[in-house]
Amino acid sequence: MSAVERRLAEKGITLPPANAPVANYVPYVLTGSLLFVSGQVPAREGKMQVTGRLGDGVSLEQGYQAAQLCGLNLIAQAKAALAGDLDRVRRVVKLGGFVACTPEFTDHPKVINGASDLMVEAFAEAGRHARFAVGAPSLPLGAAVEIDALFEIG
Amino acid sequence: MSAVERRLAEKGITLPPANAPVANYVPYVLTGSLLFVSGQVPAREGKMQVTGRLGDGVSLEQGYQAAQLCGLNLIAQAKAALAGDLDRVRRVVKLGGFVACTPEFTDHPKVINGASDLMVEAFAEAGRHARFAVGAPSLPLGAAVEIDALFEIG
Amino acid sequence: MSAVERRLAEKGITLPPANAPVANYVPYVLTGSLLFVSGQVPAREGKMQVTGRLGDGVSLEQGYQAAQLCGLNLIAQAKAALAGDLDRVRRVVKLGGFVACTPEFTDHPKVINGASDLMVEAFAEAGRHARFAVGAPSLPLGAAVEIDALFEIG
Repeated sequence: MSAVERRLAEKGITLPPANAPVANYVPYVLTGSLLFVSGQVPAREGKMQVTGRLGDGVSLEQGYQAAQLCGLNLIAQAKAALAGDLDRVRRVVKLGGFVACTPEFTDHPKVINGASDLMVEAFAEAGRHARFAVGAPSLPLGAAVEIDALFEIG
Repeated sequence: MSAVERRLAEKGITLPPANAPVANYVPYVLTGSLLFVSGQVPAREGKMQVTGRLGDGVSLEQGYQAAQLCGLNLIAQAKAALAGDLDRVRRVVKLGGFVACTPEFTDHPKVINGASDLMVEAFAEAGRHARFAVGAPSLPLGAAVEIDALFEIG
Repeated sequence: MSAVERRLAEKGITLPPANAPVANYVPYVLTGSLLFVSGQVPAREGKMQVTGRLGDGVSLEQGYQAAQLCGLNLIAQAKAALAGDLDRVRRVVKLGGFVACTPEFTDHPKVINGASDLMVEAFAEAGRHARFAVGAPSLPLGAAVEIDALFEIG
């Protein structure tokens, strides 16, 4: 078991199986030392867990949990890309965070923190990343959050 | 003629001329082996072909066609960047897909597939890419779709 | 003083201090020769300067100014990342531009030009970049614009 998964296990968190893409693309591409992971939604074993919009029925806490699940799915994809060895991740470089929300919503950072906090829990210092957090009127399959990621691999 | 263009020609598809940027930026930047192509809209010879929003008058089929045209424009830019030799593309690494849509729309993946399917038709295995697909309230000049791309060059 | 800052000073522009992230992430990550800078909003010394939506009270000129301030904040972060030496920037590779706007708004390119024009003023030929410009229903803390950046470092 990788050090990354041990750290998560200590917090009572287990990685889900990697979700299959919902269309004609692949979940990750490795080019040089850069691992690009496709946008992940808050689904578990193919079932969407958090749908709807922030500012319109989805609470900040639900949004944070949705972003955390996106983060777990990103790590699960990285694990699949690295044949199980998450300790090859040298750095979480960047997260791109999209929050389904109303025009009045302003707390996108607090939502995407669900994934950002997870990356630091999982990868410690190597988990500190650049990111953007923005709004979207809607996301695939009604997802409340979608996040993609770039990892540096050693 | 590159193998890429031959594959497209067999499907009756010809590359359009590369569109000029609509503002003060460049259509692509090559850094190391990475070719970043600016966001492309469904325009042909400078004329926008598909405007409006998915879920509000623009059908899934029109959205798919719009994404395909974005994809053709991305490949046309890559061709210009590579002095015509598209066979230098080692991998389509990532597409970033934005769909102009209503808050109720949920089929973003089916729209962006217009570009994803094209990449696999054009580049075969090397065309399989990571991506995100998200919504936007509106896009430049009323475009229904905007997609940017990252290619790995050999 | 770097040549970059001298060019800006000739135009009467001084770099602001780098803003602190508003959540659990870092303002930039350097991997190989690539410097990824987190999404910047039009804030100065922690205070948001331009809030609201284009097409709903925020004018094109205000949007352009907001994007310019995002650009200044991106350059300020790059300066911090490079221990003050902005002349190590070999190329502005890419800007990702998000404009808070209504569904009817179509002038995203003219808004993001505020940052694109600044990059060319600051870095001359090396400032010419790829980019995308898209809409968002809302952005963090009500910001009118958010832009992230990728620089190539020598």
